[in-house]
Amino acid sequence: MELGVGGSNPPCCTIKMVKEKKLKPELASGFIDRKGNELILKDRLIEIIKRNFQLYGFEPLETPGFEISENIGKFLPDEDRPMSGVFGFKDKKEWLSLRYDLTAPLARYVANNFENLSKPFKRYQVGNVWRNEKPGQGRYREFTQIDADIVGAKNLNADAEMCVLLADTLVKCGLPKDEFMIKINNRKICQGILNYFDIKDPKQSLTVLRSIDKFQSVGKKGVLELLQKGRLDPSGDFTPGAKLKKDIAKAIADLMGGDSMVQYKDNYRISGGDTLYEIDDDLYLEGLKEIEEIFDYLKKMEKFNVMKSIYGFKESKINIQLDLSVVRGLEYYTGPVMEAEIPSTTFWKASGEPKAFKRIKIGSIGGGGRYDNLVSRFTNQSCPATGISIGLDRLLLILKDKDKEVINNNPVVICVFDNKNISKYNELLQKLRSANINSEIYSGDGNLKSQLKYADKRNSPAAILYGDDEIKSGVVTIKNLKKGKEASQKIKTRDDWKSGESAQIKVKIENLVDEIKKLL
Amino acid sequence: MELGVGGSNPPCCTIKMVKEKKLKPELASGFIDRKGNELILKDRLIEIIKRNFQLYGFEPLETPGFEISENIGKFLPDEDRPMSGVFGFKDKKEWLSLRYDLTAPLARYVANNFENLSKPFKRYQVGNVWRNEKPGQGRYREFTQIDADIVGAKNLNADAEMCVLLADTLVKCGLPKDEFMIKINNRKICQGILNYFDIKDPKQSLTVLRSIDKFQSVGKKGVLELLQKGRLDPSGDFTPGAKLKKDIAKAIADLMGGDSMVQYKDNYRISGGDTLYEIDDDLYLEGLKEIEEIFDYLKKMEKFNVMKSIYGFKESKINIQLDLSVVRGLEYYTGPVMEAEIPSTTFWKASGEPKAFKRIKIGSIGGGGRYDNLVSRFTNQSCPATGISIGLDRLLLILKDKDKEVINNNPVVICVFDNKNISKYNELLQKLRSANINSEIYSGDGNLKSQLKYADKRNSPAAILYGDDEIKSGVVTIKNLKKGKEASQKIKTRDDWKSGESAQIKVKIENLVDEIKKLL
Repeated sequence: MELGVGGSNPPCCTIKMVKEKKLKPELASGFIDRKGNELILKDRLIEIIKRNFQLYGFEPLETPGFEISENIGKFLPDEDRPMSGVFGFKDKKEWLSLRYDLTAPLARYVANNFENLSKPFKRYQVGNVWRNEKPGQGRYREFTQIDADIVGAKNLNADAEMCVLLADTLVKCGLPKDEFMIKINNRKICQGILNYFDIKDPKQSLTVLRSIDKFQSVGKKGVLELLQKGRLDPSGDFTPGAKLKKDIAKAIADLMGGDSMVQYKDNYRISGGDTLYEIDDDLYLEGLKEIEEIFDYLKKMEKFNVMKSIYGFKESKINIQLDLSVVRGLEYYTGPVMEAEIPSTTFWKASGEPKAFKRIKIGSIGGGGRYDNLVSRFTNQSCPATGISIGLDRLLLILKDKDKEVINNNPVVICVFDNKNISKYNELLQKLRSANINSEIYSGDGNLKSQLKYADKRNSPAAILYGDDEIKSGVVTIKNLKKGKEASQKIKTRDDWKSGESAQIKVKIENLVDEIKKLL
Repeated sequence: MELGVGGSNPPCCTIKMVKEKKLKPELASGFIDRKGNELILKDRLIEIIKRNFQLYGFEPLETPGFEISENIGKFLPDEDRPMSGVFGFKDKKEWLSLRYDLTAPLARYVANNFENLSKPFKRYQVGNVWRNEKPGQGRYREFTQIDADIVGAKNLNADAEMCVLLADTLVKCGLPKDEFMIKINNRKICQGILNYFDIKDPKQSLTVLRSIDKFQSVGKKGVLELLQKGRLDPSGDFTPGAKLKKDIAKAIADLMGGDSMVQYKDNYRISGGDTLYEIDDDLYLEGLKEIEEIFDYLKKMEKFNVMKSIYGFKESKINIQLDLSVVRGLEYYTGPVMEAEIPSTTFWKASGEPKAFKRIKIGSIGGGGRYDNLVSRFTNQSCPATGISIGLDRLLLILKDKDKEVINNNPVVICVFDNKNISKYNELLQKLRSANINSEIYSGDGNLKSQLKYADKRNSPAAILYGDDEIKSGVVTIKNLKKGKEASQKIKTRDDWKSGESAQIKVKIENLVDEIKKLL
């Protein structure tokens, strides 16, 4: 029998394949499947986040997965290394890339539609992004990002508002205020400190900042190595360092290592380790002034506790802290940057007073910053912008464990005794579905035992038995599967059921919906 | 100023780019951007559809965009033609492809997790798919699919249930019952008719069925050409035909052209054109019997009107019709296939009695069928399956025009007179947001005129004016932008406002929320 047929385009794969050797049904490395209640929770989070973004005046945007490579940045797949960082494809005329974030495509979109957009343009986007990198534990080559951005606003209220949005959204997702904090820094401060230490070579500057960005993964000792000769990681890979002298490396690690203290009143003097530095670099001062302006905005809001150092945590508020170790990975940031961080529970318990957060593995669950030059790659028009991104997969990971009362979304299963009665089962089904109760007639081909096994495996709240006897007398038997889970394993025949009465009840058809509702 | 810095992985693109020549911010061909209320509606549809799938007992699944090419079918990108049909991509060890549908990945998933899944396994999935094809009007290389499938059920109740699910979901999305219909066919019937006409060569059979599948796009005349010598399309491309003799081509076009009538009671005789055929092929008879079984299931449900030909349409019901021209593009179908179709309004109005639907351009907005061999590519276990897919983008296209009362999702805009009063504006903002009213403080850097222009462009329901006078006297001015849209174009100064009283009111702060709610 040869039944295959194809339209003009779609692929085909049935009959001939069967004759060939069997394939291994493996996933490509660096990708995962997800299923069931985890996705119900994911959808719920996305809904909460979108709703909050709308509440803050953002409108939705959807750009495609593919962009012209050149348009989204210099990780252009070339003939030599077509696969570095992004997934690239040679199209007819040009190279295409799967987007690696949602910000670079936004810049392309704004430039492309500049005249027709409201200024500022406030949009949110939910979408998958792809990174062609070495996959690792909990690190995939495809993941979901959720972004909100304000394009065309240079004032710092916009940055403060993004900060509020980030914090408020996480709280609305169900993250307790005392289990995360918002850390703020400014790329101008980073650059100002480099200026102060006379680090002017662009390549060396880059290496220094990249080293600071690794505090989270390699610790202070590792950063010190990276700032000097370089670091040999446990896998045997050697990362060349920034070649700073020991004392400068130490000073920078002290200042930008997350526990420095800036003394605002006193001309922005800053203490790192035991030393007090008076950094008179213009960029550094400008950066600090900007932070202060953002802090002024936030301080006026009841729900925030604004700290100029890592000390001063309050459990009843959303804690916002200046932290010079926050660099943010993406290179396009030009001003204030922020990160929402989850500390480790263990560290938290051991920390005592003053309560402080420290960078640990779980790390950032969102963040963002100001990027004033991304749109000007396309147009001469100045187009300052600021935005945030929420790491949905990590947030999901944390909330999955917290969400103890996940709704049982699984269906009530109506068992099939005899296919001739299918329209009788259908009557019950219509009653349940009309009452918005997830439900189904068993759709497989197994006997009663298989049907109950199926309902168990689905984690169904109840199975419904509606045999000839029940139909005659106008009743249905409801098997409470929560109650009877253990007992049901042993059941083989219809008679067995009658003995295990505790977990099952007979009700009149007109009471079916009410009785099921009691179980849910 | 060199501010760039990168983490270990992400791309970087700022400063240097600015110095280079400007890029053209174009979209890659075959892709689109979407924005605003269209996406609000899209989200709402997805939510309705997911909820309905859950109601029917399906659980969510999410598989990645990439699959190992071999696993999802024979459109394997090879070195010669690496981009034919799918987006293919050479990974370290193997070729990866972006999925072209959600069914082939489902088969891979089921085979990979066979032991742990409930049998049958009922899942839904919403996700983007990619086809590397020539883009056309309304035809993109990336689009969203929504699928529901039952894997591991060979009985035809499952097919009937998928039919109910498809119809019911469309109705719940807001599509009126008399504006679409479900057309059913069976691949076994198609094959049986080919057998009857002694068309046995697999390649020729394929060409015949592919020709029938083109009724929608090329009409009966075109199909007749395709069944014989071939067809020259307006662009000048020649498609070689199935090389059937004229009388056989005509008979097949008559029988499978959508207006044939099957006489069930009478040993399944079928009339095509003026001729009555008695097709005694076993596969044909088996196929018809299966359809009859599905129809028996559906006939018992109040809401359906089941027709064995294209005649007998009822406006008050969901119309389900046998239509031998329904083939479905994907090659893996093995049994009953179905399609939800939207007829053209013009045709509908002109059609008179008997009311009949005809294939026109808008065509299918969903469909599916039985594919019993897809999982067995991986495993020796028999794993019959049936499923449907909803064409969300087309559905959106139709409902977009219908949805006249789209909620105004745009924010109330609080104007900024003086940044020193920002915390005052913030107090208003908190009141509005606490009442779940989308709202924002204007975040740009423009003057009052620009701010009102912005609010207009955003289609905001209202702008709020809270200047020094208002702050002193505890009132706010609400500018009703629906009412005052035209007037607002002329406004240049604060004073102009005071003359256009009709569209604006002064209210006490404590009444702000109530007054705004009246406007929404």
